[in-house]
Amino acid sequence: MTGARDRVLEEATASPTVSRAEFEARAPALRVALLNAQFDLRASNESVVLLVAGDDRLGIAELVQLLHEWLDARHLDTCIFDEPTPEERERPRYWRYWHALPARGRMAVFVGAWPIDAVGALVSGQLDDIGFEAALLEMLEFERTLANEGTRIIKFWVHTPPAERARRLEQVRRDPRHDWRVEPSDWDLHEIHARAEPHVERLLLQSSTPWAPWHVLDGRDDRTRDLALAEHLVADLGAARAAPPAQSVPPLSPNPGRLPAVDLGRVLKSNDYERRLDDLHGQIAELSRRARLAGQSTVLVFEGWDAAGKGGSIRRITQALSVRDYRVMPVSAPDEAERAHHWLWRFWRALPRAGTVLILDRSWYGRVLVERVEGYIDQPTWQRAYGEIRGFEAALIERGYVLLKFWLHIDPAEQFARFKARENTPYKKYKIGAEDYRNRARWDDYAVAAEEMFARTSTASAPWHLVGMNDKRAGRIEIIETVCAALARRLDDVAPSA
Amino acid sequence: MTGARDRVLEEATASPTVSRAEFEARAPALRVALLNAQFDLRASNESVVLLVAGDDRLGIAELVQLLHEWLDARHLDTCIFDEPTPEERERPRYWRYWHALPARGRMAVFVGAWPIDAVGALVSGQLDDIGFEAALLEMLEFERTLANEGTRIIKFWVHTPPAERARRLEQVRRDPRHDWRVEPSDWDLHEIHARAEPHVERLLLQSSTPWAPWHVLDGRDDRTRDLALAEHLVADLGAARAAPPAQSVPPLSPNPGRLPAVDLGRVLKSNDYERRLDDLHGQIAELSRRARLAGQSTVLVFEGWDAAGKGGSIRRITQALSVRDYRVMPVSAPDEAERAHHWLWRFWRALPRAGTVLILDRSWYGRVLVERVEGYIDQPTWQRAYGEIRGFEAALIERGYVLLKFWLHIDPAEQFARFKARENTPYKKYKIGAEDYRNRARWDDYAVAAEEMFARTSTASAPWHLVGMNDKRAGRIEIIETVCAALARRLDDVAPSA
Repeated sequence: MTGARDRVLEEATASPTVSRAEFEARAPALRVALLNAQFDLRASNESVVLLVAGDDRLGIAELVQLLHEWLDARHLDTCIFDEPTPEERERPRYWRYWHALPARGRMAVFVGAWPIDAVGALVSGQLDDIGFEAALLEMLEFERTLANEGTRIIKFWVHTPPAERARRLEQVRRDPRHDWRVEPSDWDLHEIHARAEPHVERLLLQSSTPWAPWHVLDGRDDRTRDLALAEHLVADLGAARAAPPAQSVPPLSPNPGRLPAVDLGRVLKSNDYERRLDDLHGQIAELSRRARLAGQSTVLVFEGWDAAGKGGSIRRITQALSVRDYRVMPVSAPDEAERAHHWLWRFWRALPRAGTVLILDRSWYGRVLVERVEGYIDQPTWQRAYGEIRGFEAALIERGYVLLKFWLHIDPAEQFARFKARENTPYKKYKIGAEDYRNRARWDDYAVAAEEMFARTSTASAPWHLVGMNDKRAGRIEIIETVCAALARRLDDVAPSA
Repeated sequence: MTGARDRVLEEATASPTVSRAEFEARAPALRVALLNAQFDLRASNESVVLLVAGDDRLGIAELVQLLHEWLDARHLDTCIFDEPTPEERERPRYWRYWHALPARGRMAVFVGAWPIDAVGALVSGQLDDIGFEAALLEMLEFERTLANEGTRIIKFWVHTPPAERARRLEQVRRDPRHDWRVEPSDWDLHEIHARAEPHVERLLLQSSTPWAPWHVLDGRDDRTRDLALAEHLVADLGAARAAPPAQSVPPLSPNPGRLPAVDLGRVLKSNDYERRLDDLHGQIAELSRRARLAGQSTVLVFEGWDAAGKGGSIRRITQALSVRDYRVMPVSAPDEAERAHHWLWRFWRALPRAGTVLILDRSWYGRVLVERVEGYIDQPTWQRAYGEIRGFEAALIERGYVLLKFWLHIDPAEQFARFKARENTPYKKYKIGAEDYRNRARWDDYAVAAEEMFARTSTASAPWHLVGMNDKRAGRIEIIETVCAALARRLDDVAPSA
């Protein structure tokens, strides 16, 4: 095993290089095949990420050029991932990659990206060996998540042996006509890559999957490298897309469910409510200012029955916040651009800046609620979603976000009364329609879906809070108390007040 | 005049406030009317920006809440414009507003935004009086540009008289139950607004137009303020959209045109070309590194006849650049999201970060070339585009970008030969189709459009460079020389090399 590990890179540079005559004989047909593959992609439901990384900076730059010359550049996006910007650092690590993902029918070249993040962090000492293993697992999960929704990921590592790299650096430095090709930092990079080599071997072996394979390109010779790239691309794009195998979903142990246990009988008097709300507004205003200064971000998820009081509860929170500290995201059916991407894409993109609050009026949980119950997606797809959601939320928590999830619960009689009240208020009528009554008729199906959701996505760091809302006043107070307590606990940890 | 100036704000707070009974009598009908207006908007070709600013921070926050409660929040975007982020500072001042503009059919609330930028810069001393006048003109031009393409802009200034503001600040500070409503910075803001008042009067008077009116809201009383907002909105949204009057286009003086003067006879030998190209690559690599360090951004526009050699010329530049320092943007027909916005939106969004190069393979000039010649837009629209383009480019230049515009010129015989060569190369066939021959048949129409474009958009700071490309080698060298010279000149100014 260790023996094999040493040789992925070595083997890639062991074959003879390609002659000019051979290159010129083979290139034209490959170029036509590439254009055809790109053309077919445009009419398909798939997207393609071509990841280009390696130890040969100039080789990578030349490959990016080649891809733009050999493919139709109008349908090719290019994203260079250098050091994260301040904006990017405020979000989970994969945020910038989600942001840049191509829409269905399109192809994008990613330069550097997540493999370089992981190797770079290990070589610089930010990650130890265990941390690197964890980064590899995160990488595999990310690629699997994309592949499940139709993204092909094809990864290239451009390898030039260290001795050859050093020789070239010396040569171009001595030749004044070409010395502009060397950047001052190239010698440092050369050293770093030499040290990184064993870790790169590990990366290439452990993160090559049928749906996101690695290909090592021989950087010693331009023509050999270019032909190999084109041949791999034509072969991979021409083959049927490899989908990750379904992961088994453990059966749920029988349980009475959490909804019946929610207390719907509490009542809070108007005076008590006003006094308590005022007090909590003071707390949350103060906490949100501390959060702003500490760069502490918060995500609040509101789910629950129609007319359970999501909007009103959200407004009772935002009333106490400064407009620049929060954003409310109402979630309904995805628009065209959103449908052209992975279903989690719109939620990744919305993640808040440091120090601010994102409040979701409905959320990614629609995947396992309305989309499941209404049959918009098939069973394997919504079953897969539990894991996708856990992965997404784990990324938020790892980045240090406070994440709170509320299910606002009422009983069917209360819902019926609220529907009627809406119908009788001219400016609330628009909130109620035939669809709401249809959903209501499927109450039991939604309850089953909600119970499975609680069971599969309540984690220690992101539990579900079920709140009885038959009495809106009692429910709102409970919600704001929960938010204040969680935020205070976190801020006392990360930024104790004076 | 001076008398009137003093009174815009005063008059807004001179009427009696609204009683609770009156509010409750009038609010329901207004809410229904607002929802209906929003519903009608969704099916229309228009978009709406509701700008909310003022001297009453809490009042503004409450209005944002109100808008989200009274309108359908699912179809309402909210953008808070605070201090510009580092990313925003690297772009022209209006970049962040362009970025945030709502699509057709949608409505957005902008808080703060460009009026606050201008007043803030004046009060803080960043702008003098003349600079403030210039900022007002820029504001008017921006709003006119949006209005011309179907954006309604409705602006609200929430005004609470200084004495009343001071009284409230004192009161909430003394009342421990409400003191969370005051932020430490509110007293500073209060002072700043007191000093800003005469300038605000000027702003309100000079930047209120039929297509982007200001309404001053009485901040002394919540109900009065809320009703006034709703009434203005219902009235403005219900009225026919006011379009800015067409600006007169001065006739062009007769001239022989610039195309006939382009030298198409030059020839550069292969050896000379290779040597010169290599030398220029060294220069441009060095210059781009200096630009990266100096934060100097560059925008290169490539226009010209089909098959004139845009792609090849661009590649001869990017070959010498590091992948992270440039981006090539191929411009073809706008996609759905782009069509739902102002035609300049996609170009504004693409503006490069500090220190990088954006290269456009075709550009915003399509508006006055293909869109004009093919009749996609009517004559007043393309005539208006010259001014819109000059305004856009002026913003780039004001921000310090180097902007170079190239027209790649060949003659019809050379074009025909290149079309035939493309047809005979399997991997270039996709670049040529019936459309290219149709365009070719309209050569004279395109020449007329190009000449008018040169005449109307060549400015001292952004002239057109016409390059003869019958000999590609000579043309490419001329282009890269022009880029190097311009960049060197600029860098010697802003960041002299050691």
